[in-house]
Amino acid sequence: MVGLRENQRMVRHVVLLRWMSAISDAERTRIEHDLAALPGEISQILRYDFGPDLILEPGNYDFAIVADFGSEDDYAVYRDHPSHQRVLRETLRPRIESRVAIQFEIGGD
Amino acid sequence: MVGLRENQRMVRHVVLLRWMSAISDAERTRIEHDLAALPGEISQILRYDFGPDLILEPGNYDFAIVADFGSEDDYAVYRDHPSHQRVLRETLRPRIESRVAIQFEIGGD
Repeated sequence: MVGLRENQRMVRHVVLLRWMSAISDAERTRIEHDLAALPGEISQILRYDFGPDLILEPGNYDFAIVADFGSEDDYAVYRDHPSHQRVLRETLRPRIESRVAIQFEIGGD
Repeated sequence: MVGLRENQRMVRHVVLLRWMSAISDAERTRIEHDLAALPGEISQILRYDFGPDLILEPGNYDFAIVADFGSEDDYAVYRDHPSHQRVLRETLRPRIESRVAIQFEIGGD
């Protein structure tokens, strides 16, 4: 990837969400549309994966967002970026019953 | 992943753990040693990332495991594999206070 050095330490940000109630197809479309726009607006995002639980196991959370960054500072830029904050405020938070998160270190590709 | 093609569908398995109490350096070494052995024993694992929370944010979970597979069937092989079950039984479960998980679809690299 452009700007990524070989064997670079990376930071993976993981968020798992449980919705307050089952979301409609229209809500899911909006959520995925709004998230899909973020890598184009926040250049610090090196890889961005998200999606609903495949319902293979009981008790799972409902939705995952996994974002990879080149550094802790780049993660913080994403966290605080107005575009991300707007998606959190307008699209995600109104639907969230519970949220768990972690940032951990991974090797670069 | 942004720009994925439909024929590159993969399954990402995410587990976040909270320990019952702070783990020692020796316990952490054992956990990471035991997990690091699994990709060599379970060929269905395409990518395996794990590690402790970087403690950038309050309220995070303590430890993440993220495993990528080529299919739901390959994920199930991992889930049920004796080597994985042994690590769960002997290394992880005795230390877990709470666990959240999801499997979701991602694009391949």
